[in-house]
Amino acid sequence: MSVLDSLAGTATAGTLYGIGVGPGDARYLTLRAAGLVQAVDVVAYFAKIGSPGNARRVVAPLLVAGRAEVRLEYPVTDEVPADSLDYQQKIGAFYRETATALAALLRQGKSVGLLAEGDPFFYGSFMHMWRRLSADFPVEVVPGVTGMSGCWTRANLPITWGNDALAVLPGTLGENELVERLRLADAAVIMKVGRNLAKVRRAVETAGLLSRAVYVERGTMADERILPLAECGTTGAYFAMVLIPGEGRRL
Amino acid sequence: MSVLDSLAGTATAGTLYGIGVGPGDARYLTLRAAGLVQAVDVVAYFAKIGSPGNARRVVAPLLVAGRAEVRLEYPVTDEVPADSLDYQQKIGAFYRETATALAALLRQGKSVGLLAEGDPFFYGSFMHMWRRLSADFPVEVVPGVTGMSGCWTRANLPITWGNDALAVLPGTLGENELVERLRLADAAVIMKVGRNLAKVRRAVETAGLLSRAVYVERGTMADERILPLAECGTTGAYFAMVLIPGEGRRL
Repeated sequence: MSVLDSLAGTATAGTLYGIGVGPGDARYLTLRAAGLVQAVDVVAYFAKIGSPGNARRVVAPLLVAGRAEVRLEYPVTDEVPADSLDYQQKIGAFYRETATALAALLRQGKSVGLLAEGDPFFYGSFMHMWRRLSADFPVEVVPGVTGMSGCWTRANLPITWGNDALAVLPGTLGENELVERLRLADAAVIMKVGRNLAKVRRAVETAGLLSRAVYVERGTMADERILPLAECGTTGAYFAMVLIPGEGRRL
Repeated sequence: MSVLDSLAGTATAGTLYGIGVGPGDARYLTLRAAGLVQAVDVVAYFAKIGSPGNARRVVAPLLVAGRAEVRLEYPVTDEVPADSLDYQQKIGAFYRETATALAALLRQGKSVGLLAEGDPFFYGSFMHMWRRLSADFPVEVVPGVTGMSGCWTRANLPITWGNDALAVLPGTLGENELVERLRLADAAVIMKVGRNLAKVRRAVETAGLLSRAVYVERGTMADERILPLAECGTTGAYFAMVLIPGEGRRL
């Protein structure tokens, strides 16, 4: 057995694993994550309606033939505003049913690996399962390379130097709130850009940061796109973010 | 060859690799990072005077016997304030000499892997080499799991939910600046706590966040310590941070 396989380890019966799969390139899975994808009884993953599931696609090179899989399909994603009652009721019910289904597998003694894009504890849907199941079942969370690390690496942008403060902001914030927070940050990552791109661009420009801002779509994936925010159109992709690198101490 | 070894890949002559080694546990290296540690001609790493080097310690299980190593010893670390002229002159000269030494190896056609704790482009010393060498030599940067991801995983604290904004703040900021930024954030990570712990604690308390704040020292390493910030003394360790988890949308 190679040293990589030996560090990757094994899975334990009846345990829930939250497996961070990193930003999109299978080479950026951790040894532990890669080992668990190969070792668990059941690989579970979230997917949008009509999509093969992004996390599932990332780990495809590691999936053993015949491995049991559970596809967890969101009833809605971004067709409905996330702050609407409709969205919250549908997603809430979906998470409750999903937790019940995973609990049944765990009670049968299966080891279950739930894939999470990036890092499971950083904006991960996994957290909604962790919240419901961690009191009743053993859980191991495997941290992952975040999507933002993948994006700043591919954009060739060291993000924070010396004592830079970094703000990670959702593009859903109001324009004035974005400007206020950008003005207090040395470096920034704006997530969930998608349909908020025009507003995000105005806020970045108002904060005087447009010349430093870079738009990254699907960073580390096969079809990644990287360009200055100033050259973007008004609609971004779902897996898009805006990066503003810090200018702290160079030595 | 196992699928892990095959994804891990090989190294190319005359190339500089910035290898993120993750938060401290060797199982949290990425496949690509682990492959490069095994494949490069020379493994280089920074270390404090009198220390074996933390990044070197993390990858120890992967080092092949007889692999060439270059130890890069900081002339000063935290004995001297980082904003003093003395520190900046000594560290500036050290980085210049180090870049010259690495350039000589690259010109000889060696593949050189420079280890970086966490992620190379997130507060990494590697960036000071990248800045000097990337115009003249091929460079590949391998993103890593950040120290903060390792810490919030071990502390069992999902850090951001829904539309939470996250502030990553250096503990070196003034007390009022810390309070102002904490008040605008939903979740926060305060780095470089060390000798700033008493000030950080006062700022967190003033911002009304003490009951949610957790102190994590050497997260994912063998001697990690995790406790409520309210129960801490006044001096923190070098590898310490304070985590304040967000309270965003639970579904």
